[in-house]
Formats: sequence, structure tokens, C-alpha cells
Amino acid sequence: MAAQRLNEFERIRRFFAPLAAPGALGLSDDAALIDGPDGQQYVLTADAIVEGVHFLSDDPPAQVAQKLLRVNLSDLAAKGAVPVGYLLVTALPRARDEAWLESFAAGLAADQASFGIGLLGGDSTATDGPATLSVTAIGRVASGRAVLRSGARPGDDVYVSGTLGDAALGLRALRGELPGIAAETRDFLAGRYRLPQPRLALGQRLPGIAHAMMDISDGLVADLGHIAEASGVGAVIEAALLPLSPAARSVIAADPLRLSAALGGGDDYELLFTAAAEVGTALTALADELDLPLTRIGRTEAGSGVEVLDDRGATLAVPVAGYRHF
Amino acid sequence: MAAQRLNEFERIRRFFAPLAAPGALGLSDDAALIDGPDGQQYVLTADAIVEGVHFLSDDPPAQVAQKLLRVNLSDLAAKGAVPVGYLLVTALPRARDEAWLESFAAGLAADQASFGIGLLGGDSTATDGPATLSVTAIGRVASGRAVLRSGARPGDDVYVSGTLGDAALGLRALRGELPGIAAETRDFLAGRYRLPQPRLALGQRLPGIAHAMMDISDGLVADLGHIAEASGVGAVIEAALLPLSPAARSVIAADPLRLSAALGGGDDYELLFTAAAEVGTALTALADELDLPLTRIGRTEAGSGVEVLDDRGATLAVPVAGYRHF
Repeated sequence: MAAQRLNEFERIRRFFAPLAAPGALGLSDDAALIDGPDGQQYVLTADAIVEGVHFLSDDPPAQVAQKLLRVNLSDLAAKGAVPVGYLLVTALPRARDEAWLESFAAGLAADQASFGIGLLGGDSTATDGPATLSVTAIGRVASGRAVLRSGARPGDDVYVSGTLGDAALGLRALRGELPGIAAETRDFLAGRYRLPQPRLALGQRLPGIAHAMMDISDGLVADLGHIAEASGVGAVIEAALLPLSPAARSVIAADPLRLSAALGGGDDYELLFTAAAEVGTALTALADELDLPLTRIGRTEAGSGVEVLDDRGATLAVPVAGYRHF
Repeated sequence: MAAQRLNEFERIRRFFAPLAAPGALGLSDDAALIDGPDGQQYVLTADAIVEGVHFLSDDPPAQVAQKLLRVNLSDLAAKGAVPVGYLLVTALPRARDEAWLESFAAGLAADQASFGIGLLGGDSTATDGPATLSVTAIGRVASGRAVLRSGARPGDDVYVSGTLGDAALGLRALRGELPGIAAETRDFLAGRYRLPQPRLALGQRLPGIAHAMMDISDGLVADLGHIAEASGVGAVIEAALLPLSPAARSVIAADPLRLSAALGGGDDYELLFTAAAEVGTALTALADELDLPLTRIGRTEAGSGVEVLDDRGATLAVPVAGYRHF
């Protein structure tokens, strides 16, 4: 009689949430806040990637390094923070050669320059298993201004940056699951999977505007569910409003079931936030200024859970509800 | 023609040191400093442990958790810092059951209470390999008061806390490499290996007294070598002065070659520091107050490297110069 397995979120809630410090935001925010100097708070976040789970053995090491850094910077972006630095922990197979490490370090160097951060410390060890890499990233934000997941109010508009589903479709393309796809389309989607773009400039403009925010790593529906749960609200998404890239649009046109990539696929690392209807005009101006689409995709309401409506207003079942590690 | 493999320190120096931020202390200190509030600095440190490398599959999960936390708290102790909190990243095999996790969390809870810290965040993921666990620990220290590895001056006395070699002998006992050892002796030594005691109270008293400090995790000779290199000095240790527990003394009496455990074995997590001769009396009083032996084992001098002298003043060769992961 095997017991029902707990998923990652249930494990965190059951075993780790009782251990949370006051600044840990109940472990529901993928980030913690501690006091910094000069009216600032530090935002702390940690994310790990494992070879064979989050990246492939033949992925270019520089891109692995950049993805590792960027998924963490994306968590800082989602709090409205400015990155400060990071600690890096590597557990690498003994046979991993120095050319791999050299390329890995070159990827870090490139992104350090892009994002204005430096390496603060860490640890390196050997493992008999797959490479396991983790980063603890540190950012800063004016005290009390970090945007949490818990601030959504009923009647907010729900927004996403950029386009959705590209990364999930990119992974499927890399796995050969999208036969007949044009090379250019495949390259675009694969690039979105391999090298996310943390939306730091956007995130830093949203304190005081967004009521709740997070980045999309588990998939739109799952992640909006996290905001809804933390905020004690429900949410309704209109599938017809989802922002799709031309590449994703063409792939979905060939098979409409692939729309699930935009609704349920993870790894887009776009920002998902809620805001009052009154700031809609300001957000349109901000999107123009940053040259980054900001799309209203639905609204929050009293209640709980996330509902997805098709273009006739009927409820759509969403098959993929976030990546489950366990 | 296989190229010469770089060890962990050479890899850090070559690939990661060029990436170091200003607060990273050149990555030579196992800790970074960033500004905190109210005239304080935060000390940041990260350490990972891998199943099969740093702990055994059948080790009690609560003790694994405590060792993981304590090796990080020991790094904070070595800077003179007060622990604030930590982030935890776990990569666990999918088959790891919830009883393991429950015991692991209980170990964290016990040590959180012992050391007055809380969990700030982290990540949990699955792996096809061995369990890989890492902690980023955060402490605080008055600005400019953290004790670095680089502050030793020629003519300092070299001190260690507690006793040396217990953990290395404990590991050998657990591996069955010390046949005939008394059960009580084995249990004491194994306990020292499994559950290090971070010397926080001592560390917090040493800013302004110690010139240079670190914890002993790679072994006395290797770690004193790190201080010597960072400080630009040499060091001489007198083997006859090494503080040994009664258990270690009995095991070494049976085979004097086992003295290498005290000189070269790691995992004791005692503090190693240098100080001016003038503070000797104050250190004796501090040892009494804390009920923790502080033993002068040698001195620093102009030059470089670490020399170990036997009781006739002849140079001893030390076979184990720090644990090499690669």
C-alpha cells in the first residue's frame, strides 16, 4: 500500500514551511526579505538546476550557466529588485573536463556584465551523479516596496509580459516532438527555452503599481494559482487573450492542442502580475517605453482557483498544471 | 596524454576568482561581506554536501541536516558572525520517502532552536543521482570587524579550539578501519565526525583579538596553509602541542601514524586563528569562560608554507594535505 506521494509544493508546505523565519514570507514567494542599509531590503532567492532534469548533458555550458543565473534573476525581477550578486554551488562529476568549466565560467562572466552583478562566493564539490548547480541570488529593493504574491485583490486585471508558451514548445522542438517545424521557428523557440530573459527593467518599475507578482516558471495556470492562493482570490483567464509569438502561433495553428504549452508549459520566465484597472493606461505607456508587450489576459475575483475560458466563454480544461518533480 | 587535473582550489582560482565581486574577498575566505543595517555587515557563505561523498546513505537524516547546517554555521563562526538565517536547496532522489524528509526537517528544527536561526527560502528539486544538499547561511557582524584569513602577521601565535583529529578518526572507525577500538571511544569519535559543533560563541569573541581565522574543514595543515597564503606569511606547527582528546590519544598510542588524522584530517570544524603573543593571557581567560580549550600550537613567521616539527624539532612530512574532490 504505497502512500500517496506529496508533490513539491505539498512537501514544502508540510516539512519546510513550519521552519520559516519571519522574513521568509511563509516560503510561498520564492524569495525572502532581510533589512539592508539605507532604507533598502535585500531580496534572497535560491534555485537549482540538475543535469537531465533542467538541462541536457550536451547543452552548451555557457548557456547552462546563463540559464542558472537568469532563473534566479527572474525571481529578483518578480519582486521588483535590483540584482546585487550571487553565490554559486556546483556539484560536478569528477570526469567533467576543464573545457566545460571554462565555457561555464565564460557564460557567467557574460551575464555578470549584462546584469551588473558579481560572484560573492559558494562551494564546489564532486558528485558521482549528474551535475547539480545552484545559485543564491541577492537583490535590493526599497524597504516595503517588494511586490509579493499575496497582494492581489478581487477585481484586479491580470497581466503577463512578453509571450507565453515559447519555452515549452522550444523544449518539445528540441526533443523532436514537433516534426515539420521550420528551422527558423525551431531556433526561436529553442532559444526561448535555453536562454530566458529576466524582466528586470519591467519588475523594477512595478512596485506601487502591481498588487501581486511572480515569474512564470511552472506554467501560467499553476503560477497564477500560486498568486490566487497566496492572495485569497480566484482568477479567470481568457485563452483568446494569451500573447503568442508568431512562432508559437504557427505551431499552435498546426495543432490547436498545443495551446496547452501557453497555458500550462513552464520556463517562459515572463512576469505575471495583477494591478487595478485604473493603471491600464500607465501600463500601456510602460510597455511602449520598455518595448516589451504587457498583455491583460484576465481578472481576479472573490473566490479561489484559476479558471480558463475559451473564446465562447466555456471553461477549458488545462492538462498540465505545473511541472511536478515528485 | 591526459592533462594534469586541477584540484578544487586551482579550479576556483582559475575559473571563478576572476568573477568575484568586491565583497567576495577574492573567494579565498569561504565567505562574503555585504553592507547591512545599523553599522552591521552580513556574512554570506554556502556549502554543499553530497550523499556518498560527505555523508552516507544510511546516516540518520536528522544528523545529515544538522551537519549541513553546522558546516555553514562554522564558516560564520570563523568570521566572528552571529547567525541570522539560511536558504536550503535540496536535490533528492525521487524514491526518497517522506519519512526521510520528516526526519531531515526535524534535524533542521532542532538546530534552528539551538542556534536561533530560521529558514529563509530555497528550492527543492528531484535528481536521478545522489542526494545533493546545499545551504547558504547568513550572519551579521559589526562593520569592519569580521575576521578574515588574510590578517595574520609574522610572529603571531597560532591557536586551535577544542581537539583535533577526532572527526577523521571517527570516519575511519565508521569504515571499520580501526579494529579493536573500544565502543565508547568509537562512539565519541564517530559523534565528532557526524555532528560538528560550530564554535559560534568563541568566534564572536575574537574580532579585535584574532588577526586571521578560519574553521578546520580540510585539515589543519591544509587550512593553516590557506591562512598563510592569504596573509603572505609562513607557519610552523609543533606536533607535540596538538590538542588531542583522550579518545584520539588512545587510538594514536596504538599506532603513531594515526597522528596524521590530527594534522591532515578534516571535518573537525574547530576554529584556527592567529593572534599576537600579548593576548595569550586574555585567551586563557576566554577558554576558561567558554569551557573550551584554546591551544597554542605554533607560530607564524616571514616566508610561506606550513612546516610541522616533531618533538625533537625535525620536520615531519604530512601525508594528507586536505581533501581533494578532483
